Amino acid sequence: MKPAVILLSGGLDSATVLAMAREQGFACHCLSVDYGQRHSTELAAARRVAAAQGAREFRVLHLDMNQFGGSALTDMGLTVPTGGVATSGIPITYVPARNTIMLALAMGWAEVLGADDLFVGVNAVDYSGYPDCRPEFIRAFETMANLATRAGVEGHRLHIHAPLIDMTKAQIIETGHRLGVDYGLTISCYQADDQGRACGLCDSCRLRRAGFEAAGVADPTPYR
Amino acid sequence: MKPAVILLSGGLDSATVLAMAREQGFACHCLSVDYGQRHSTELAAARRVAAAQGAREFRVLHLDMNQFGGSALTDMGLTVPTGGVATSGIPITYVPARNTIMLALAMGWAEVLGADDLFVGVNAVDYSGYPDCRPEFIRAFETMANLATRAGVEGHRLHIHAPLIDMTKAQIIETGHRLGVDYGLTISCYQADDQGRACGLCDSCRLRRAGFEAAGVADPTPYR
Repeated sequence: MKPAVILLSGGLDSATVLAMAREQGFACHCLSVDYGQRHSTELAAARRVAAAQGAREFRVLHLDMNQFGGSALTDMGLTVPTGGVATSGIPITYVPARNTIMLALAMGWAEVLGADDLFVGVNAVDYSGYPDCRPEFIRAFETMANLATRAGVEGHRLHIHAPLIDMTKAQIIETGHRLGVDYGLTISCYQADDQGRACGLCDSCRLRRAGFEAAGVADPTPYR
Repeated sequence: MKPAVILLSGGLDSATVLAMAREQGFACHCLSVDYGQRHSTELAAARRVAAAQGAREFRVLHLDMNQFGGSALTDMGLTVPTGGVATSGIPITYVPARNTIMLALAMGWAEVLGADDLFVGVNAVDYSGYPDCRPEFIRAFETMANLATRAGVEGHRLHIHAPLIDMTKAQIIETGHRLGVDYGLTISCYQADDQGRACGLCDSCRLRRAGFEAAGVADPTPYR
């Protein structure tokens, strides 16, 4: 089995990506980044998801990005919006450079493992306001990655897989449901409580709930 | 004064870059990354360099990259070579994805600061064996950065400045000397001791010493 590095957040999207990578026959080395997000229950969720899907390995990197602030997810002085999903502009839940940083960390681990494949659950449809969720960002990162690492020098290529990029939330849930993903283990809420219960009101909860409805799959999310 | 983020390692190159950014009139926000490198004296050196040059701010981010290993700089089970600078291949002191990770972290801070300028002391001449010190890597990172962040959406551009990229070590030292850089504050050695004294034998020491000789500048490095 070829090794691959999978970025795992504990949420619905990356749990689906892990199942897709496993279906493609990769030995999955899962990476979560503790970057000072509002709650650590999502790291516990990531660990559960990795174990439930038979990942080869699960690691957490710690990075004190919250000293920079600038996002409602890392700055406790800012409030997570709960009034409904905005249709224009960059949401305050955008974490500056998050996907670039996470992909860079995954790339470093991949190089040590000798893995040429990275999987990330970015999605351009639901999160159109995040600049680092666009297909052109993923393509530019892949180009850069092949110049940054041994791969470019040694004549093999790194591949950044973003299999959800054009999928709707309903399509993602249908795919994971078919592959046996237990979404009850995942947490998407931006402000889950200590027991991992979701608020039901933040953008992430709204998109997730609507996705289960559109997919016709029972929503296993514990709401508080 | 426009803000800029400067990656500062405590070494000779990045101390020179800071002086060049200051000369161009930037308010300099300096970032060091504690990624599990062999010694922390270089972080202390970075702090001294930032203070001596009147940086606006100095921050250290902590990142436990040493759990990945794969480099003699982060894996205590590997030995730093001291037999002379190899002329081909990727040195074992190469840290996988290091420059990508550091630039990504700098980019995140720049976005929060509202800075469009990042400075990094990569150099293609002396370190030709490191894939992430090549000009084409810097250009690809800049392209990616402008897709990853608010800049690309809001119509301004991020610039990655790598002013040393084509300079020899002697040219770098001449430039810094002219700008008043106190190289006695810097540490380049891959295995400096607790007092910051250099081994004189690793690649970094050899390149640095030869640079001072070629520049005709007195070498202030404390050797043990």
